[in-house]
Amino acid sequence: MEERIYKPEILLKFSKQIFDKLGLNEQDSEIVSRILIETDLRGINSHGVARIPIYAKRIKLGLINPKPNVKIIKESNTSALIDADNGMGHIASYKAMKMCIDKAKKYGMGSTGVRNSNHFGINAFYSMMASAEGLIGMTFTNTSPLMAPFGGRERLLGSNPLCIAVPAGEEPDVVLDMATSVVARGKIEVAARKGMKIPEGWAIDTEGRVTVDPKQALEGALLPFGGPKGYGLAMLVDILSGVLTGSQFGPETGSLFGDLDRPQEIGHFFMAVNIENFMPLETFKQRMDSMIRRIRNSEKAKGFDRIYMPGEIEHEKTLELQKTGIPVNDKVISQLNDLAASLDISERL
Amino acid sequence: MEERIYKPEILLKFSKQIFDKLGLNEQDSEIVSRILIETDLRGINSHGVARIPIYAKRIKLGLINPKPNVKIIKESNTSALIDADNGMGHIASYKAMKMCIDKAKKYGMGSTGVRNSNHFGINAFYSMMASAEGLIGMTFTNTSPLMAPFGGRERLLGSNPLCIAVPAGEEPDVVLDMATSVVARGKIEVAARKGMKIPEGWAIDTEGRVTVDPKQALEGALLPFGGPKGYGLAMLVDILSGVLTGSQFGPETGSLFGDLDRPQEIGHFFMAVNIENFMPLETFKQRMDSMIRRIRNSEKAKGFDRIYMPGEIEHEKTLELQKTGIPVNDKVISQLNDLAASLDISERL
Repeated sequence: MEERIYKPEILLKFSKQIFDKLGLNEQDSEIVSRILIETDLRGINSHGVARIPIYAKRIKLGLINPKPNVKIIKESNTSALIDADNGMGHIASYKAMKMCIDKAKKYGMGSTGVRNSNHFGINAFYSMMASAEGLIGMTFTNTSPLMAPFGGRERLLGSNPLCIAVPAGEEPDVVLDMATSVVARGKIEVAARKGMKIPEGWAIDTEGRVTVDPKQALEGALLPFGGPKGYGLAMLVDILSGVLTGSQFGPETGSLFGDLDRPQEIGHFFMAVNIENFMPLETFKQRMDSMIRRIRNSEKAKGFDRIYMPGEIEHEKTLELQKTGIPVNDKVISQLNDLAASLDISERL
Repeated sequence: MEERIYKPEILLKFSKQIFDKLGLNEQDSEIVSRILIETDLRGINSHGVARIPIYAKRIKLGLINPKPNVKIIKESNTSALIDADNGMGHIASYKAMKMCIDKAKKYGMGSTGVRNSNHFGINAFYSMMASAEGLIGMTFTNTSPLMAPFGGRERLLGSNPLCIAVPAGEEPDVVLDMATSVVARGKIEVAARKGMKIPEGWAIDTEGRVTVDPKQALEGALLPFGGPKGYGLAMLVDILSGVLTGSQFGPETGSLFGDLDRPQEIGHFFMAVNIENFMPLETFKQRMDSMIRRIRNSEKAKGFDRIYMPGEIEHEKTLELQKTGIPVNDKVISQLNDLAASLDISERL
């Protein structure tokens, strides 16, 4: 597939125009667009500007509220419960992590939950807001059901990702951002399109049998990574994001792409821990650097020439793309241009 | 192997006598013994009274301080950093989780770190102290290095377990307690003794090649579960337990069984979240019950006739063993009797 390269500012400006026209207020439009561009800069193209068309579709269908009144329902020194008012997930989540950071700075810890929300992008963005402020940040979200519990065959759990970001000193922050499924459903879709088999262990068919046929897998369910361990983690992410926040959970959550007749009603959960309550931040950062270097410089396994820290690949990608610009593939460019045209925006990518 | 069955009270009394004689004060002896018996009641025999001989050995060698002065080094409303004074890990950890619970009840969240500590038993015991009080409890500990980072071949990380316990209503609490390695080293030792092969993916040899030979695996390193995901989680457990608390971390931690010339110097980390800050506890518990029942009653995969919740097997084991008593194998009985004799205790199991 052909692709073209854009400066981040170009994509940011284009994205803002679109969200402005879709009815978001200026500040929200800026927040959403900035998160999307940062995501593309990390090399996570699937969750960057490529998602604008589906967001726009849902807004146009009235399934996402473009002008949400994000409300704090309940608040204490260390916690807040926030209603996203069915707006874009990024808006309430940005506010939620900001509050979490403030609370952790003042009171040592913060935890904020968001209910009545929609897809919020990548977990890492929010956790890294905390690590950039010298805190340990954690982000959890439930997603629409794609995965079977261990021993089951119904889609009852999302790929429910979790992310923990930890500040380091001279080294890049450690950012573990991972789904609790073995792979993303998108990888199985790619295999189906290419007529390829998938490895054993990725998914099951509708009878709950492990399958290597991507078509059967798409009708069946994804499997959690590490069997009962990934299943347990997926449940816990759903408990924090869905059960505890008062959002939908399990199979009741709506799908971004699949359910075009209802809001997603998903939830998110954020936590921040103040390192200074345990040791001076500078000491902690030095200790992190020494941990990172000890692992990076250790002997490699057969077939590996490098050991990466969690998030290091994305960090290096960011440094690279900040120089070269962000690649966007032709299909996405044409979708975005069509969208702009439909919104009477004269500019084109 | 033959085994005998004991009432929990008998084992508790026997254990207390031993720890009294080893020099623990009465209260600490009671705490440690109660945790060991609760562990046996969960069916985790490897971490119950069977561990008394190695604890005793380390105390006799002067590697564990029998009368620790557990000190609070730093404290805020939501946090505490505790020095275990090289005592048994259970003692400082019990105090740490108690503080965590009090803080979460008063201020919404609590996090406590323990440094300068030793093996503390099972994570689940501490997390369940919180869930029994209607809080979400989390427990992390680093362990001696057994596992290679993803892409590496040196033992730089422990099996670093984590546990999250969540209160339910009529259903048993959800308790996910898991190591971040594919399997415990003990399983490879068993295979080596029986002359059996191990499955691919459990471990690597000294060159970092995946091996099915348990002897080569024991000389090499365990692998993290789920490749880079389990590796990332193991690092994060080490960051919270080791780096943040000021304990040793990575390859610098000492082994309970292996290092008989130095203290372990490991660390632990505990967190508690007050559910009432988000919704009434009763509502939350009903939502948990409905999540649990939805999953349990769903269609089973080929080859499964039941879907378990995290911790459900251990919960049922506890109900069973509370009635029948705790099985202890002959080898452990004779070790414990020898130990009693060496301490001039007249009673025998």
